[in-house]
Amino acid sequence: MRVLGVDPGLTRCGVGVVEGAAGRPLTMLGVGVVRTPAEVDTPLRLVAIERGIEEWLDEHRPELVAVERVFSQHNVRTVMGTAQASAVAMLCAARRGLPVALHTPSEVKAAVTGNGRADKAQVGAMVTRLLRLAAPPKPADAADALALAICHIWRAPAQNRLAEAQAAARRAPAPASVRKVRR
Amino acid sequence: MRVLGVDPGLTRCGVGVVEGAAGRPLTMLGVGVVRTPAEVDTPLRLVAIERGIEEWLDEHRPELVAVERVFSQHNVRTVMGTAQASAVAMLCAARRGLPVALHTPSEVKAAVTGNGRADKAQVGAMVTRLLRLAAPPKPADAADALALAICHIWRAPAQNRLAEAQAAARRAPAPASVRKVRR
Repeated sequence: MRVLGVDPGLTRCGVGVVEGAAGRPLTMLGVGVVRTPAEVDTPLRLVAIERGIEEWLDEHRPELVAVERVFSQHNVRTVMGTAQASAVAMLCAARRGLPVALHTPSEVKAAVTGNGRADKAQVGAMVTRLLRLAAPPKPADAADALALAICHIWRAPAQNRLAEAQAAARRAPAPASVRKVRR
Repeated sequence: MRVLGVDPGLTRCGVGVVEGAAGRPLTMLGVGVVRTPAEVDTPLRLVAIERGIEEWLDEHRPELVAVERVFSQHNVRTVMGTAQASAVAMLCAARRGLPVALHTPSEVKAAVTGNGRADKAQVGAMVTRLLRLAAPPKPADAADALALAICHIWRAPAQNRLAEAQAAARRAPAPASVRKVRR
C-alpha cells in the first residue's frame, strides 16, 4: 500500500510517500515540502499548493492520501490557512478518485511514538528509525507528513485493503463476466 | 464591472453575479446555490463545489470574484467547512487569473443596508430593492452572495478599474508595439 501523507499548511505543506503494510517493513519513496511565500495573496498560494500536490501525485501514484485533520482550537490565523491548504489536498486526491483518510495529530503521534502528546523531536526520531533514514527529515512538516502516512498504514488495514483493491481495479479492467454484471 | 459573489459553505454555497459600477444601476445576471449532501465525505463535496463554481465562471465570465472572508470565532464545525469551501472558490478564480476580493460579513451588511449588524431579512430586502427583483432570493446564502458582489462593486472602485483593464487586456491582444515592449 502506497500512501501520500500531507501535513497541510500555506507556508509549508509537508508531503511524504511511504509504502508498506501493517506488520511489514516500511519504505520511504519521497519526502518534501511545498512552500508558498507569505507575501503572496492566499488565492495564488492555493494555486501553487495545488500544483505542488498534483506533481507529487503524478510522480508517486499513491493509492491513498492521508491528511492531517484540522481543528480550530489552534491559533486563529494559522488554522484558516491550514484548513484551506487541507481543502486543496483533499480536492486534488478526490478529483483523481483516490480515497482520503484524515488523522488527528494525536492519533499520528500515538501511532509512531506510542504517546499522543509526543513532541516534534520524538516524532522525527521515530520516523527516522521506522523508515531507516540517515537523519530526521527537515523541516518538521516533512517528518510529520511521513508520520501521517505511517499512521495510516498501521491504523487502517481494512480501509487499506479496500483502497488497494480499488487501485488494482483501476489498473486492470475487470473480466468480461464481471463487467457485464456491472452494467 | 461583472462580479461573481460567493458565500462559501459545504452544504450551501451561495453564488450570484452582479454587473454595474459605483453610482450606476446594478443588474443581476444570475443567482443560485451549489449544494452538496452532508452525508458525503468532505473531499467529494469539495470536488462537487469546484465543479459548480467552474460552471458559474464558465457561464458568466466575471472579471472578479468576491468571497466572504471567513473568521474562526464562529461555530467550530461550520467554520472549517466554510474555510474549505472558500479555498475552493479562491482556487477556481485564481487558476483562471481572476482577481479575488475578500469582504467580511459586516462590511457586506454595512455596504448594502448601512448597518454592519443588519439581519438576514434586511440584507435580503435591500438586495431585492437594489437589483429590482420581484422577491428576495432564496435561500439566504444566495442573497448573501449577491450582497457580496454589490458590496465589492461599491467599495472597491479603484481595484475594479484595475480588474476591468486586466480583463480587457485578456480579451483583446495588445497592439504590436506594446507587445514588443512587454517582451
